[in-house]
Amino acid sequence: MENTEIKENERIDDLNLGGLKIIQDPKQFCFGIDAVLLADFAAGSVKKGTKVLDMCAGNGIITLLLTHKTRAESITGLEIQESAAEMAERSIALSGVGGRAKMIRGDLKDAADIFGKGVFNNIVCNPPYKEYGGGYISRGKSAAIARHEIMCTLEDVIASAAALLRPLGKLSMIHRPERLADIISLMRKYKIEPKRLRSVYPSYKKAASMVLIEGARGGRPKLICDPPLYIYEENGEYSDEINIIYERKI
Amino acid sequence: MENTEIKENERIDDLNLGGLKIIQDPKQFCFGIDAVLLADFAAGSVKKGTKVLDMCAGNGIITLLLTHKTRAESITGLEIQESAAEMAERSIALSGVGGRAKMIRGDLKDAADIFGKGVFNNIVCNPPYKEYGGGYISRGKSAAIARHEIMCTLEDVIASAAALLRPLGKLSMIHRPERLADIISLMRKYKIEPKRLRSVYPSYKKAASMVLIEGARGGRPKLICDPPLYIYEENGEYSDEINIIYERKI
Repeated sequence: MENTEIKENERIDDLNLGGLKIIQDPKQFCFGIDAVLLADFAAGSVKKGTKVLDMCAGNGIITLLLTHKTRAESITGLEIQESAAEMAERSIALSGVGGRAKMIRGDLKDAADIFGKGVFNNIVCNPPYKEYGGGYISRGKSAAIARHEIMCTLEDVIASAAALLRPLGKLSMIHRPERLADIISLMRKYKIEPKRLRSVYPSYKKAASMVLIEGARGGRPKLICDPPLYIYEENGEYSDEINIIYERKI
Repeated sequence: MENTEIKENERIDDLNLGGLKIIQDPKQFCFGIDAVLLADFAAGSVKKGTKVLDMCAGNGIITLLLTHKTRAESITGLEIQESAAEMAERSIALSGVGGRAKMIRGDLKDAADIFGKGVFNNIVCNPPYKEYGGGYISRGKSAAIARHEIMCTLEDVIASAAALLRPLGKLSMIHRPERLADIISLMRKYKIEPKRLRSVYPSYKKAASMVLIEGARGGRPKLICDPPLYIYEENGEYSDEINIIYERKI
């Protein structure tokens, strides 16, 4: 029988999406809106019956969401941290999506050895945002690994994705705008052509807080800049689009 | 005395901006909103008393606008086509801005020989948008050169700008979103760090039609994605921001 037991410090959050539930430990790392936006952005490019890899899967939030938002045959979460991977496995069992979703423990730098080359139709990655300068990191180790490029760099992510994707397979990422030039340059370096860019703004008239970007392995150059995605309306409420993404009634 | 005579097929357009007038020949090439947006975007980074170069200056629209929108000491338009450069010279005279603006005829690939290296604080370029595949080009030669990469490629533009800019000098461009990955990759190649990106949308919920981008020669990596710029409101009128850029009363 699958283990769905809850440990000390953990809580179960109902995602209110197709019965999905996620186990989280606030002392480690809880998912944010970025994971939800990325899952929705990437889902638009996932076709029925395909194989999807969620790199840097963490507590499995994107793996879980993609079981609901796509008709992919399989969604595999790859996570280097044992505690996060184990928690994600319990969330998958608790949500009853073990038939399509699974977790693999491993380093994405070894992913081509684990999975073989050119096997995934889509790869999704919500990577650590912050460059690791070797300095003091204030939070717990687990959260630090999720946030800082300690275990893997942006280049590791893109290089691995290039090896793992089928020809014309898609890599979808979310990141800080300040790293967009790095992402585009690295995608080009590893022959993943940037095809779709969507900037996420906290509200009107503010600079973007996040960018969503999708590239196609070996694709032809033609980038489309999607309409902006606003998180909040001027009255401070979530925008209609955010409510649609969360599948809340408007 | 300066020549301000008008030739057959030409017309004088009043820019309604500080008395500026431009001579245009509809059979050649008339400026579009892209030139106005770029002049406004670039002007925000032009400091008092500096030297500005307008590459691919064409009929001089951006050179003219920058005399009004900045306090630069000098604005030099570089144009390869004699007929466009000559027309721009007459527009400069007609607008009475010959004290700060001038036109130089020449190929931007030779610009470091013409001007010397590292001499400009700001470079502005509204380059030909379309890659030249060698195929049939329907319009007159002059318009074709303005629209297609016949006389210079995007790489020529960025390579020349890198040679001509002072350290931390700014290159500001407008282009189609589909070339954004090329622009960012080429800026990086020539050590111009992308610092500011602003997408231009025809209206709400549409994909971007243009992107404004600014890079700093030898700058530190940190890209900011400015709020979106909308051209039209939902009612089909120009947006408030467009009216502000054109200095029309709202």
